[in-house]
Amino acid sequence: MSLRTVEIIAAKRDGKELPASALQQLIDGFVAGTVPDYQMAAFAMAVVWRGMTAAETAALLEAMLKSGDEVSWDDLGVPTADKHSTGGVGDKVSIPLAPAVAACGVAVPMISGRGLGHTGGTLDKLESIRGPGRDGSGKGFETRLSLDDFRELVRTTGMGMIGQTERIVPADKKLYALRDVTATVESIPLIVASILSKKLAEGAGALVLDVKVGSGAFMKTREDALALATAMVKAGQAAGRKVTAFLTAMDRPLGTHIGNALEIAESVEILRGGGPDDTRQEVVRLGGEMLRLAGRVATLAEGEAAIAAVLDNGAALGKFREMVQAQGGDPRVADDPWSVLERAPVVLPLRADGAGTVLALDALQVGLAAVRLGAGRNRSEDEVDMAVGFILHKKPGSHFLPGEIMAEIHARTPEAAEAAAAELRRAFVVGEGQPDLLPLWLDVVH
Amino acid sequence: MSLRTVEIIAAKRDGKELPASALQQLIDGFVAGTVPDYQMAAFAMAVVWRGMTAAETAALLEAMLKSGDEVSWDDLGVPTADKHSTGGVGDKVSIPLAPAVAACGVAVPMISGRGLGHTGGTLDKLESIRGPGRDGSGKGFETRLSLDDFRELVRTTGMGMIGQTERIVPADKKLYALRDVTATVESIPLIVASILSKKLAEGAGALVLDVKVGSGAFMKTREDALALATAMVKAGQAAGRKVTAFLTAMDRPLGTHIGNALEIAESVEILRGGGPDDTRQEVVRLGGEMLRLAGRVATLAEGEAAIAAVLDNGAALGKFREMVQAQGGDPRVADDPWSVLERAPVVLPLRADGAGTVLALDALQVGLAAVRLGAGRNRSEDEVDMAVGFILHKKPGSHFLPGEIMAEIHARTPEAAEAAAAELRRAFVVGEGQPDLLPLWLDVVH
Repeated sequence: MSLRTVEIIAAKRDGKELPASALQQLIDGFVAGTVPDYQMAAFAMAVVWRGMTAAETAALLEAMLKSGDEVSWDDLGVPTADKHSTGGVGDKVSIPLAPAVAACGVAVPMISGRGLGHTGGTLDKLESIRGPGRDGSGKGFETRLSLDDFRELVRTTGMGMIGQTERIVPADKKLYALRDVTATVESIPLIVASILSKKLAEGAGALVLDVKVGSGAFMKTREDALALATAMVKAGQAAGRKVTAFLTAMDRPLGTHIGNALEIAESVEILRGGGPDDTRQEVVRLGGEMLRLAGRVATLAEGEAAIAAVLDNGAALGKFREMVQAQGGDPRVADDPWSVLERAPVVLPLRADGAGTVLALDALQVGLAAVRLGAGRNRSEDEVDMAVGFILHKKPGSHFLPGEIMAEIHARTPEAAEAAAAELRRAFVVGEGQPDLLPLWLDVVH
Repeated sequence: MSLRTVEIIAAKRDGKELPASALQQLIDGFVAGTVPDYQMAAFAMAVVWRGMTAAETAALLEAMLKSGDEVSWDDLGVPTADKHSTGGVGDKVSIPLAPAVAACGVAVPMISGRGLGHTGGTLDKLESIRGPGRDGSGKGFETRLSLDDFRELVRTTGMGMIGQTERIVPADKKLYALRDVTATVESIPLIVASILSKKLAEGAGALVLDVKVGSGAFMKTREDALALATAMVKAGQAAGRKVTAFLTAMDRPLGTHIGNALEIAESVEILRGGGPDDTRQEVVRLGGEMLRLAGRVATLAEGEAAIAAVLDNGAALGKFREMVQAQGGDPRVADDPWSVLERAPVVLPLRADGAGTVLALDALQVGLAAVRLGAGRNRSEDEVDMAVGFILHKKPGSHFLPGEIMAEIHARTPEAAEAAAAELRRAFVVGEGQPDLLPLWLDVVH
């Protein structure tokens, strides 16, 4: 029996549990245009207020998933796995992770997003890889591929990294735009349905979630992050997928490089067996869990060992080279990144005034400073500057002497570099003693 | 400083108190079309959730009031007063009340509404008075007058009873339509701003509110009704008006007649010094308080005595006759109502099966049965049948013997009469002992 839309809104307003059929009717009507934006906006605010049960969240997810195409990899012959991060500053993990996992024989069909606000986006970073393009037109690394091209890419190279297409979860595209202007983004069930509907539509059998915690993350506290992680794991499992969520620290930036081309450079270091310890740890553990969920290894420790091995023996780098070439980038980025990536014209060192220890480096402030340099977006229609950003020479726990370089600012103009240097100096909390940091690994939800 | 609309919504979502300027900006933008319906819908749901402080409610009221024309009676030379009821079954109080108050030298510029759901509306009832119309076209009693005609009417006769015009509080017209389809009607601050903005725009200096309590009322419990009454009195006083709210019983219908023409007939009985005791009590007390607030008398008792006198000496009936003529109805309705009103073709008596006492008569069930007979509307575009309805011969507390008439059903067809008789029989709770009723007067808020 079909309900009137206003009755569905009223039931949620009154804290009642909605049947799956009501959520299906609502989402179908919204996509078809028979449920107007104003009714969906009132419903979304009622969900922010009242929340949703696990059963409602799973039903909403299912309804959104069904609004568009779903990719199937049943005929691929190898297991599939994907990873999603809730976003942070310096979080380039997907870029070395996907080729590492693919090098271990698990296909990675990954649909990613763009940066917004203080967090960067995988697609922007990949598009900083210049090159001939897939058709020789000089477009460089291409992420706007059709689903058919994506399928072909994963079939031939074992991986692919593309952006959202019109045909994947149109309900989310429409609903997210509405939530953005109606102050209804902050709702765990709506976030879960938004993230997972896209990830499930990609069709990967296993999914590892990286839920960031801290000032530079969407979830500022461990409690909120745990609630989101738990809701996502439950909803993903209810939809028949293997899902693990890790809670990881985002009170300071991840790794050393922040900015699009700069993060590709750090990713290549990781793929060569080097790079900052925290970034490598995340690639190894998240990748290891993807191998375990996909059935490639029996334990997380085995999975971590397998990922570490392909980072150290060049197999992951080879897979990255192959992926870059297949998606239109210049594969020499894997061997000599700065022969392919654009360097910023101004590089300004930020030097220490005195001696001391870095006690904290606020991820949000660093992220906002990077956006002001041009590395990110305030609004989704803003252009991104691929070359600019920061290289951190000192991170929380680092000691420094007077005149030592704390960070490099890569900027378009000397004025922009000076302004960013002042901002970055304020983001460094220095003094005596030990930094009070979140542990890199806060929790895990299976 | 102007805020982004999404920030205003987010602040309310987070339970913060909004400054008056933010509410003004929101309402102005909504009326101008720059704040889209979906943002206002999300805001309204956030208000249902978080409520509003007295200061916010007063500011919202002020912003809505300013969205259209405000009538001023400063040049009238006599004080002005108005009355508003939250609506009930058989509530025809305004119709005898307005002429009674006007007969006591306080002008009554009254803008009323139409019936919706199980509650009737003053305008529908008045329009059952047939007659020549204001221009001789045969339209009968006219309620769609311009503000200029309304002003002239009040100036010459001391009263006028019309419907909402486009120029009075356009913000409410637009907001109410949106709330109706987004399950955001049930919010005390939104109700207060909606009711009072229209009443204050009429310009009356004093306002008496009749907040109904019980099954047939919008507010089912004394607590909810008291909260609404208190919020209305505070907001009205903050806007510089004299306001009193009475809480009165609506667990059973008011008076004996339910239906449009039937309620005009009961009103004429009241204006002739007769009629049911409960209806007369309400006219006397609400009218008495209007006289007191308007400064015409010093105490409520004096006011009640003055109203009772004009009901008993024909002065109120004379004012009613004058008003009916001025608004296009046939003034003979004051002398011989059924020579002017349409009678239903079928009148079916509902007779008692045995002997007993009426313990309860559920107002909501009676109201819904009247709507199904055609006396009311389920949707605002429905047509209303002026002639049909009920006359209650027995009410809670009445004793009856076998075969006695409990009620008359006035219907369009025998089938409709039989169906309504069955419904009405179910609405009567009969047995031994004393009825457990709400007192007619539950509370008063100054």
